[in-house]
Amino acid sequence: MTATKKYAIGIDLGGTNLRVALVSEDGEIARKIKTPSSEPVLDAILLAIEEIKQTDIVGIGLGVAGLIDRKRGRVFISPNLHAIEGIDLVREIRNRFNVPVMIENDANVAALGEKTAGAGKGFDNFVLLTLGTGIGGGIIHKGKLLDVSAEIGHMSINADAEKCPCGNIGCLETYASARAMIAKAVIMLEKDNESILKECCKGSIYKITPEDIYRAALEGDALSREILKDAGRFLGVGIANIINIMSPEAIILTGGLVGAWNIYVQEAIKEASRRAFKELFDAVKIIPSSLGDDAGIVGAASLAFMETTGKAR
Amino acid sequence: MTATKKYAIGIDLGGTNLRVALVSEDGEIARKIKTPSSEPVLDAILLAIEEIKQTDIVGIGLGVAGLIDRKRGRVFISPNLHAIEGIDLVREIRNRFNVPVMIENDANVAALGEKTAGAGKGFDNFVLLTLGTGIGGGIIHKGKLLDVSAEIGHMSINADAEKCPCGNIGCLETYASARAMIAKAVIMLEKDNESILKECCKGSIYKITPEDIYRAALEGDALSREILKDAGRFLGVGIANIINIMSPEAIILTGGLVGAWNIYVQEAIKEASRRAFKELFDAVKIIPSSLGDDAGIVGAASLAFMETTGKAR
Repeated sequence: MTATKKYAIGIDLGGTNLRVALVSEDGEIARKIKTPSSEPVLDAILLAIEEIKQTDIVGIGLGVAGLIDRKRGRVFISPNLHAIEGIDLVREIRNRFNVPVMIENDANVAALGEKTAGAGKGFDNFVLLTLGTGIGGGIIHKGKLLDVSAEIGHMSINADAEKCPCGNIGCLETYASARAMIAKAVIMLEKDNESILKECCKGSIYKITPEDIYRAALEGDALSREILKDAGRFLGVGIANIINIMSPEAIILTGGLVGAWNIYVQEAIKEASRRAFKELFDAVKIIPSSLGDDAGIVGAASLAFMETTGKAR
Repeated sequence: MTATKKYAIGIDLGGTNLRVALVSEDGEIARKIKTPSSEPVLDAILLAIEEIKQTDIVGIGLGVAGLIDRKRGRVFISPNLHAIEGIDLVREIRNRFNVPVMIENDANVAALGEKTAGAGKGFDNFVLLTLGTGIGGGIIHKGKLLDVSAEIGHMSINADAEKCPCGNIGCLETYASARAMIAKAVIMLEKDNESILKECCKGSIYKITPEDIYRAALEGDALSREILKDAGRFLGVGIANIINIMSPEAIILTGGLVGAWNIYVQEAIKEASRRAFKELFDAVKIIPSSLGDDAGIVGAASLAFMETTGKAR
């Protein structure tokens, strides 16, 4: 922390964790805190800001898992954090700290973070996908965050299939997310399919994680390989759709499932290569994020810098 | 045509027709020509420009049905007009007329046309869909044309279904376009399904048009209604995907199939309302274009104005 540098606070409010960091304009993290999201959420956020705010800040940016009301700067829906749906976070935080406060979707700020200081630095047009319990998206166009919902995980890739809790049918997320993999593993094991997964997780198939599935697949477990490849293939369908619509220079993948790159992502790349317009596929790089879990806080801080320096998003 | 007004030439090179117009900066058409696309295409274009260019122009904009190589300003693929794939249209036209020449996808320029002087004038963020033989898309974001492929018709909405000629599987276009409707009608009639469509089109079911299907549906023909509603339902799946990803203020529909609004589009709106995030659906207006077939030439001319006035797209 030097005296001449400017700082903003970036907050990433995912479903399970609250991350708060003091970040410089070039995306360097000076200090950060990570705690489990606790209720009441607003108090937890205000407390964390107090703790991290050891210097003057130009503003505060918030990345929140959920659908953002872009006109009013509020959260419409946050499936994993219903408690914040009724709260005007922006106003509450602004009233307390008297600096500009911005709010965005968590995957959108992660995309902005990768643009500011991560794997997206060298690209002007890319799409970031967060691959975890659910699937989120953020779009950078001409170097700026595209101010849209980017709910790529809730794009239907099977018009007549299973209903997604969001109300749509056949969402990408219901086929290619960690939740989808786990659900499939449980169904297959309940049907008594052969797999070393039966022996994992303290004997309870209901505690299986994507990491367990990946580990089993690497040990040669056929069922685990099938689950990963299947999810990867559907991810590839989604990626091909994104390529055909957004013609990006890069697709940056982040989130827990990126750890299963060698099976899951490789399969997705193969499937996307079969489906997207060849000319567009040949022009796109599919790469992992470099900031990982820090992308959100860096991007959220970038939001605040953009607001205060007047750089249009 | 007044002496003080500035003009550009807008060219819309669809699969079957060549439209060329002299257009003012505010999108007013001073003169226009429409001829069937004839070979050699380049000669036809140059001739039409000569004919329409009765005053000084600031530039020439081209909208071409096909996938545009955005880096080199050329056409990668034009499924209905293969003849232009090998030609550097921009250079050839620039060399002849010595003014800036821009190229874009035809649905993209149509979106720009609606923004300049049509149904999109009052919206900063909208998506235009061209509903005809195929399905195309163009995206306006913050008042400007989004410089992306926007091949919305080639978004898969059924991961494991029929192969599309583009290489992808289950493309929106294979379910919701005029080509899809006609193919379905023919299949159903070949199977000897009951329908008054059998009597239409000089007795040949292979000459059926979407207009025939719509007319028959209005006369109460059950098969025709089913074909239109089915295509409309799939269009609704695509529209819901667009809403979830782009959170637009409006979706503007253009092309021949808009004539079947009361069955086909109404069904699409109903389906999209069931599928998209409620908060996003409630914020979007789904409306017909106001420029119709002129959107392309107006938008193509706008491209040229933007280039020459330095307004970034």
